[in-house]
Amino acid sequence: MLSFKNYRLLILSLLCSSIGSGAFAQSFNRRQERQATERPNIVVFFVDDLGWQDMSEPFYTTKTAINEKFHTPHIESLAKDAVKFTNAYATPVCTPSRVSFLTGLNAAHHRVTNWTNPKANTPTDSKDELLNPPDWNINGLSPVPNIPHTVYATPFPSILKANGYYTIHIGKAHWGSAGTPGASPLNLGFMVNVAGHSAGHPQSYYGEQNYGNLPGKTSYQAVPDLMEYHGSSTFLTEALTQEALKALAEPIRRKEPFFLHFSNYAVHVPIQPDPRFVQRYLDRGLDSTEAAYASLVEGYDKSMGDIIQFLKDKGIYDNTVIIFLSDNGGLSLSPPRSGAPHTQNLPLKAGKGSLYEGGIRIPLLIKQASGHSGSSTSTPVMVEDLFPTILQMAKVKAYQLVQQEPDGKDLTSLLTGKNDESWNSRPLIWNVPNKWTVPDGPGINFFSAVRQGDYKLLYDMKQGKLELYNLREDIGELNNLAPKMKGKTSELSKLLSDQLRTWKAQLPNYKTTGQQIPYPDQLKSVDR
Amino acid sequence: MLSFKNYRLLILSLLCSSIGSGAFAQSFNRRQERQATERPNIVVFFVDDLGWQDMSEPFYTTKTAINEKFHTPHIESLAKDAVKFTNAYATPVCTPSRVSFLTGLNAAHHRVTNWTNPKANTPTDSKDELLNPPDWNINGLSPVPNIPHTVYATPFPSILKANGYYTIHIGKAHWGSAGTPGASPLNLGFMVNVAGHSAGHPQSYYGEQNYGNLPGKTSYQAVPDLMEYHGSSTFLTEALTQEALKALAEPIRRKEPFFLHFSNYAVHVPIQPDPRFVQRYLDRGLDSTEAAYASLVEGYDKSMGDIIQFLKDKGIYDNTVIIFLSDNGGLSLSPPRSGAPHTQNLPLKAGKGSLYEGGIRIPLLIKQASGHSGSSTSTPVMVEDLFPTILQMAKVKAYQLVQQEPDGKDLTSLLTGKNDESWNSRPLIWNVPNKWTVPDGPGINFFSAVRQGDYKLLYDMKQGKLELYNLREDIGELNNLAPKMKGKTSELSKLLSDQLRTWKAQLPNYKTTGQQIPYPDQLKSVDR
Repeated sequence: MLSFKNYRLLILSLLCSSIGSGAFAQSFNRRQERQATERPNIVVFFVDDLGWQDMSEPFYTTKTAINEKFHTPHIESLAKDAVKFTNAYATPVCTPSRVSFLTGLNAAHHRVTNWTNPKANTPTDSKDELLNPPDWNINGLSPVPNIPHTVYATPFPSILKANGYYTIHIGKAHWGSAGTPGASPLNLGFMVNVAGHSAGHPQSYYGEQNYGNLPGKTSYQAVPDLMEYHGSSTFLTEALTQEALKALAEPIRRKEPFFLHFSNYAVHVPIQPDPRFVQRYLDRGLDSTEAAYASLVEGYDKSMGDIIQFLKDKGIYDNTVIIFLSDNGGLSLSPPRSGAPHTQNLPLKAGKGSLYEGGIRIPLLIKQASGHSGSSTSTPVMVEDLFPTILQMAKVKAYQLVQQEPDGKDLTSLLTGKNDESWNSRPLIWNVPNKWTVPDGPGINFFSAVRQGDYKLLYDMKQGKLELYNLREDIGELNNLAPKMKGKTSELSKLLSDQLRTWKAQLPNYKTTGQQIPYPDQLKSVDR
Repeated sequence: MLSFKNYRLLILSLLCSSIGSGAFAQSFNRRQERQATERPNIVVFFVDDLGWQDMSEPFYTTKTAINEKFHTPHIESLAKDAVKFTNAYATPVCTPSRVSFLTGLNAAHHRVTNWTNPKANTPTDSKDELLNPPDWNINGLSPVPNIPHTVYATPFPSILKANGYYTIHIGKAHWGSAGTPGASPLNLGFMVNVAGHSAGHPQSYYGEQNYGNLPGKTSYQAVPDLMEYHGSSTFLTEALTQEALKALAEPIRRKEPFFLHFSNYAVHVPIQPDPRFVQRYLDRGLDSTEAAYASLVEGYDKSMGDIIQFLKDKGIYDNTVIIFLSDNGGLSLSPPRSGAPHTQNLPLKAGKGSLYEGGIRIPLLIKQASGHSGSSTSTPVMVEDLFPTILQMAKVKAYQLVQQEPDGKDLTSLLTGKNDESWNSRPLIWNVPNKWTVPDGPGINFFSAVRQGDYKLLYDMKQGKLELYNLREDIGELNNLAPKMKGKTSELSKLLSDQLRTWKAQLPNYKTTGQQIPYPDQLKSVDR
């Protein structure tokens, strides 16, 4: 488990969390008020299942055929004011990324390596004929200790709240299973929660279907709250946008800095057409499924645009940090997508669930409250980096963490728009000792991987094989260099294995023997 | 409809609602902060369906047999610090009382005269063979204009919020139907909402049953939010208590005055035993139904006690106004209660749904932040009086109402513990042009009434009959004085009719002719 070493004492944090009535606290409150006016607001647009190219703004060197399918003018506008990360990564499925975001921990470290079931104590792994998953944290993140099968950690919104931020969560949460504290965003540092709970997707995007809340037909995915839109034609994306604007009015009125985590349920399945936008894509010749998907994307873009326009109208856009990212790669299972499976993110290989680039490479934009904008960086970065980055941008210098030692690196030095050579040796790590879906797909189920510089090594746990790619030359991961570059393969295999050992990362077990599979550097040479 | 006369312009309110960034607003914010420390916190315990005697603290001249059945030590403690109202009233069912509470309007005036369906545009009246209900506001309260079948009014929590209060709603809302803005407490001036929506009772009190959120078995009454308790043994009353304590931590930490509307779902049906307390009542010989009911009551009492203890622990009990009341009389339908129908509130006649005392007389305690306590007043008062009372106690001198002219009277002059003779002539009015349930019961369905001083006149719309009682001498409404006291009967009949006309209150229509029934003073003398 995680160590207790990381108790950084933090005068601010202790003061902020003290509830008392002394003159000391009063004086502190006044000081805090003054500081508050100097701190930026922070808005995070955390999109669900949006592929790296699923927008009209390119994150590749050129605009791709996939980019051309989509119409996202507001993402394009934001990119002009932001720093673009062209080599940003998440984990291949949602909960691990979301927990990494909130805790600063790599998924191999926090052990929430697959999506969490809406119901507690219920693994989500499919059955595999060869391997059993380890005893991973199937209940997700917990802000309370001693909750079985959870990672106990401090979520950064609670630090922001303790430091004077008005904290708002709107939309998908999916940080912990029902029956555990992590199921409620109100336990994770948010003062306001609308529509966030333990489920990872909406039962329905349609107000006419009460977003799933139909008596006798309701699943765990029925979207909570939002009852004022039930029976109306308000698409879920629009309802959440209206809720976000409503919630933002209060900190603006109070002149308090705010943190809005806007996590729309779009563009996750069910791929239901957003009636406001779908015709454009049918007219372009997309089939009904892909037109529906593109309409979900444009609905999301409209939502971002409405919120950004609101910030501009209130005169606070300049003092607001805006971060836009996805929680994993675009879905490439077909169905629910159409077309041949695992072609939806080309030239990236595969999609959601995979450790190939299609599953983990994400769009990332960071618009600062002040500073350089309109540039891009190719430095590889990862979702857990946002933890220290956001705290840095919020000017929170000192804070107390219950237990975790964050793995994320503060990205603010990259926001000059220049690449920073000192980041080149940093390894990015993935570990998926899980069976996400059936059948296995390219890079999907029981894989781990490391990227360092241009090179990426993948460990196929079921095959006991290693693959090596040079991403600069081969973004499609078509040319496995492992047979040719044995030295580099060994070097990265050792790097990956050592980091997994350091974190006590979990590996699956063989069904027949119950033995844990080898670390990549323990493979027999014949396998390598 | 309501007039527009009541625009009181209000510097405070306008300033508070301005969203800007000027030095003017900053200076105002600092001023507001100073004022905030002088304002009391306000906690309202709004109980659902709790009868006038359904607690061990008496609101009658003596402790009654019904009082003896219950064990509510925390209500007893609160009564010692509060002013007790022994002649307090609500409407006979929940939504009308809740709308009167939030708007200051009498139910005859706001026209939400029956409970609202969780689903929009769906009347809740049962069928009657003689009368049709009028076109009442079946969708409840709306803070937004031009919503069909709603009363458009300013709810006082939005005024408190605009004046620096941190506003929290926990539990049952039931102010408006799904599909209308009033369905969400976030639209009614609350910053935080946990578990409040358009339904009037819980599908289940049990965490093991996810409070109703069981896939495929969910009704409109499934309690939203609270997912962290799903699958646990946490009784709904306790879950809501924990949520209230959690929500209160934030305004306390911020040193902001707060308004907590704590509206537990208890003690409404379903009458499910609270396992923590039910054995006491079984041991006392109550049958399983009545033991379950008493356990719901004690659970509520425990909840109040926990919140009050929390306020004491934080050192803010003295500066907190605490108001305790029920939204109507105790249920006397059997089943779901046990025993003979309409005996559960004796000596009061009938129960919930009735305009006899059993349906409308409620317990009311007001503990002030400072001032006289431990006394009682017999002055008749009504739920809408809390609107001006709370604003007065919150020291909000000026506020803007979108439309309504409140009917409620500020009760603060009664909080000296002395009766105020000037209140004696004030009429209290009820109007129920609705069919709440089948069959008709005593005072239930199609009744209106007025109380002035000791006398109460009831108008039985289906029978076309008037009844007159002297409540001081005959609290059980057993001796109809109408045949003997024709002058008093005529006088009160005129008073009731004139007030109904002034408010353009609604009356039902005859099914055969479509004609509106007569006002009480239009009855032919033979009927009177």
